[in-house]
Amino acid sequence: MKKKVAVLPGDGIGQEVMNGALDVLKAVGDWFGHEFEVVQGDIGGVAIDLHGNPLPSETLELCKKSDAVLLGAVGGPKWKDVPVHLRPEKGLLEIRKELGLFANLRPVSTFESLLSASPLKRNVVEDVDFVLVRELTGGLYFGKPSERRGKNKEVAVDTLQYERSEIERVVHKAFQLASKRRKKLTSVDKANVLETSRMWREIVDEVSGSYPDIEVEHLLVDVAAMKLVYQPKQFDVIVTENMFGDILSDEASMLTGSLGMLPSASLREDGFGLYEPVHGSAPDIAGQDKANPLAMILSVAMMLRHSFGLKEEAEMIELAVQEVLNAGYRTGDLWNLGNGPVVGTKAMSQFVVERLEAD
Amino acid sequence: MKKKVAVLPGDGIGQEVMNGALDVLKAVGDWFGHEFEVVQGDIGGVAIDLHGNPLPSETLELCKKSDAVLLGAVGGPKWKDVPVHLRPEKGLLEIRKELGLFANLRPVSTFESLLSASPLKRNVVEDVDFVLVRELTGGLYFGKPSERRGKNKEVAVDTLQYERSEIERVVHKAFQLASKRRKKLTSVDKANVLETSRMWREIVDEVSGSYPDIEVEHLLVDVAAMKLVYQPKQFDVIVTENMFGDILSDEASMLTGSLGMLPSASLREDGFGLYEPVHGSAPDIAGQDKANPLAMILSVAMMLRHSFGLKEEAEMIELAVQEVLNAGYRTGDLWNLGNGPVVGTKAMSQFVVERLEAD
Ligand SMILES: CC(C)[C@H](C(=O)O)[C@@H](O)C(=O)O
Ligand SMILES: CC(C)[C@H](C(=O)O)[C@@H](O)C(=O)O
Repeated sequence: MKKKVAVLPGDGIGQEVMNGALDVLKAVGDWFGHEFEVVQGDIGGVAIDLHGNPLPSETLELCKKSDAVLLGAVGGPKWKDVPVHLRPEKGLLEIRKELGLFANLRPVSTFESLLSASPLKRNVVEDVDFVLVRELTGGLYFGKPSERRGKNKEVAVDTLQYERSEIERVVHKAFQLASKRRKKLTSVDKANVLETSRMWREIVDEVSGSYPDIEVEHLLVDVAAMKLVYQPKQFDVIVTENMFGDILSDEASMLTGSLGMLPSASLREDGFGLYEPVHGSAPDIAGQDKANPLAMILSVAMMLRHSFGLKEEAEMIELAVQEVLNAGYRTGDLWNLGNGPVVGTKAMSQFVVERLEAD
Repeated sequence: MKKKVAVLPGDGIGQEVMNGALDVLKAVGDWFGHEFEVVQGDIGGVAIDLHGNPLPSETLELCKKSDAVLLGAVGGPKWKDVPVHLRPEKGLLEIRKELGLFANLRPVSTFESLLSASPLKRNVVEDVDFVLVRELTGGLYFGKPSERRGKNKEVAVDTLQYERSEIERVVHKAFQLASKRRKKLTSVDKANVLETSRMWREIVDEVSGSYPDIEVEHLLVDVAAMKLVYQPKQFDVIVTENMFGDILSDEASMLTGSLGMLPSASLREDGFGLYEPVHGSAPDIAGQDKANPLAMILSVAMMLRHSFGLKEEAEMIELAVQEVLNAGYRTGDLWNLGNGPVVGTKAMSQFVVERLEAD
């Protein structure tokens, strides 16, 4: 297989974790005889510095001509005081919208050897294994008007808007995912208060007709926020709108206690996707070879699975990560959980590559 | 002191827990020589059945003529299929708005003897002690328009709107509360995306000028959702807008693992307030003398403190609850945490009353 991958390392630790992930991608490609052409582009703070824009048109064009996108992380204190429309994060919001990446998948599962990193008790968190699907290009974060009003600008307004088709497509994605898993879908809304949520719930019920073997549950967002902490094992696939998904997916990312391990995918219907770790740019440890590259490496596995249909290749990476953890290697974020020495970003990536080559 | 209290037991276990709380109120009144006149009114499902309206005008009038309101719980499967504008929860939204109860206070603190009920590890959750202040009468849950649009009603819209004055008053409340506590205020918003949040953040910074001894921190809502699970001890007072507060306060209510213990207050500027447990109407155990009355009893303590300025009386109730727990008594929700027999709603309330009378 021959594929072109747009690589956007971004800011902070982005470049470091990306280097490790690209080594892994190359190793898997060599093993299976795939050719992954990698082309780098700028996004976020580094793009502001170089091009005056967190998402330069060159970067967008590069992504459009590629088969998938790998993204490191964006942002940092350096760009804290630039105008809002020029912030690094704006690059993220725009690339999602411009590429039509409407479904954000966040798998949350535990690594047995890292369970003690969790703030939750072992019996609550062990065997947790769900995917949260967040609608990513609609709702409150994109609605117009978003403005100040009144004589003295004493009123602020944001708009939560959804079209039927925007909800349908992400709900279908979630049902399809549940079909390949434990066949349970939890839809989260605030249908007792919001009109958008009532439409959301109606559509979930309609679409469920096409997936008769999937069990569907509706939860109010406040109840879902409780259950994620109290009974996280009860979930298989969760689907929700953009802002609820933003809050709940970050809440969920804390369950395992190992943020440095969590990958994500942002997809559209045709299989194209953008893959990035859940963690941020961690400016405090940038450039020090301290970052955990495993979330970025697991994001590569998600790309192979979801955009390229390379299931075996994806599983090979996931297994290699598992084995490296089982062997006791830990980066600084998980320093208290290993029995071996703490290793750096490069060494950790190299261990994964070696596991792959040893297979 | 002579005070009139409007008592709205509502649905499910509401009446049972209210009975216990009223016994406690009477016992404290007798001890300190206060006269609390109690007048009952209907709200929620029971009000729909009796008056065709979840918030009958008689109930609203009663509240307006009282010095404070005690509310049990509303809702249940019985009213699941009534039209949205007639649901029991509508009664809650309306009473908040009609009475101007803009600041919802949810204290979250741990009881040493109940720590093992928490899904969190002991070292993460012990000594947690914060109050979440949620703006309660503005934002997305009240914004207009909230409607369907388009030829085929294929677009749904809700509106998130805040006026400067709505934000100022709740932010002042939170600063005042922090002044009486550990002097740290965490303001939660999504200022990197929302215009309402940018105004929110500006106002918090402005208002902070009047409270120079309070340390102020701004957190994005997604980061706050993480920190609540991971580092809940770092909080003293949290203030946020309505919807973020809805989600985060329910997430927070799970930290201690004892939902049946958590009270809440909904206040306006003049000290008037509505007090209710955080838990719902629990229709599955209603009428069986199984409910935990302690959240309702602790809500009475909050009323004494916040609406009537009776600090000593409030502390006496809180101490009595503590002692009853220390003595090992547990209701069914906490059955696995006691060393004594499981007791019913009435017995539990009676134990608290006896502790008060023994003082
Ligand atoms: C940076 C921000 C706009 C973004 C979001 O909220 O969508 C981030 O928090 C995320 O979740 O990817
Ligand atoms: C019933 C509902 C409208 C209400 C809310 O979200 O405000 C409830 O969830 C609460 O938090 O008191």
